[in-house]
Amino acid sequence: MKTKLRTHFEALVPLTDDEFNFVHSHFSSQTAKRSTYLIKEGEPVKYVYFVISGLLKLIYTNESGEESIVSFAMEDWWESDYMAFYSGSKAHLSLQCLEDSVLYRISLEDYQNLCDKSQKMLRFFLQKAQRGHIGSQQRIISFLTLSAKDRYEHLIDRYPALLQRVPKTQLASYLGVSRETLSRLYSSKSYLDRTT
Amino acid sequence: MKTKLRTHFEALVPLTDDEFNFVHSHFSSQTAKRSTYLIKEGEPVKYVYFVISGLLKLIYTNESGEESIVSFAMEDWWESDYMAFYSGSKAHLSLQCLEDSVLYRISLEDYQNLCDKSQKMLRFFLQKAQRGHIGSQQRIISFLTLSAKDRYEHLIDRYPALLQRVPKTQLASYLGVSRETLSRLYSSKSYLDRTT
Repeated sequence: MKTKLRTHFEALVPLTDDEFNFVHSHFSSQTAKRSTYLIKEGEPVKYVYFVISGLLKLIYTNESGEESIVSFAMEDWWESDYMAFYSGSKAHLSLQCLEDSVLYRISLEDYQNLCDKSQKMLRFFLQKAQRGHIGSQQRIISFLTLSAKDRYEHLIDRYPALLQRVPKTQLASYLGVSRETLSRLYSSKSYLDRTT
Repeated sequence: MKTKLRTHFEALVPLTDDEFNFVHSHFSSQTAKRSTYLIKEGEPVKYVYFVISGLLKLIYTNESGEESIVSFAMEDWWESDYMAFYSGSKAHLSLQCLEDSVLYRISLEDYQNLCDKSQKMLRFFLQKAQRGHIGSQQRIISFLTLSAKDRYEHLIDRYPALLQRVPKTQLASYLGVSRETLSRLYSSKSYLDRTT
């Protein structure tokens, strides 16, 4: 588990043993059963989470109680309600486990301390934030320019494992379509799979 | 103009005169007439731009040549095709001036040099990237959860100046609705303005 975290950092910044141990001391580990809420709307957001294994969903719930999935987070992904985390405000999103999950987590105080003390980790977090921004921009473009069908095709091309791991209702919520629309797409895709 | 840049940095990180002059030496200034393309799809992306005055639009053009507006950038905003800028790939977005604009710009080499040499600027860019990520996440939530009417209301509540500065066709393209839909919303809003 510690090795996975180190490999993840070292993909962007090389660390000596001492440096990694210092970085590691700022994180704590957590296991969470399927359905556990790591962040709940309206409550303080104490941590950013890093997924060692498992699957999370970041959810926005509207006034009528309907859920929209803002993002999924699987192995090697970071997730939080970042706006609330950085600003200290209450969560306006929720983060829930879709599978039993093993996680690392870091508090704002530890995060800031790490950024103060380690230029390498500052650089690491900058690159992660840039990638997060770019990923979100790609998703905005997909909403502006792609049909539900094309958004679905893109998603399963990019993350084929999601189809096996995520209930169709949740995929529909991520794509911003109804369960019925997704079922139509899903069956035509299965048909394509069988005939090609 | 130099003062505006300094004020912008110092809102997040205090800088001595020497530090600011060092930072400033990594930027060059540029003026650009309305309609000028700062970034063109398919071409290399040399710079990230900071808007001193004026207004830009970041555009995605689909295979049929239809334009979608990914974002507007006005005074004090940073904009680029970040994916192409950081990776060195060709632009898949275009950046065009909607008004005569005065800009600062920084190349990838200067950006990396600045991050290497100045921990304060590394921290500044981290905060900007985080805010960019959060802003994009908010927009994703608006696509998932709001009607076109509500997206329009949010936009003009947040950036009332856009209504005066941006042609309605462009606003429609940003909101992901047709020009006709926006006109309907626009006239009902004007009606509300007159009666309240």
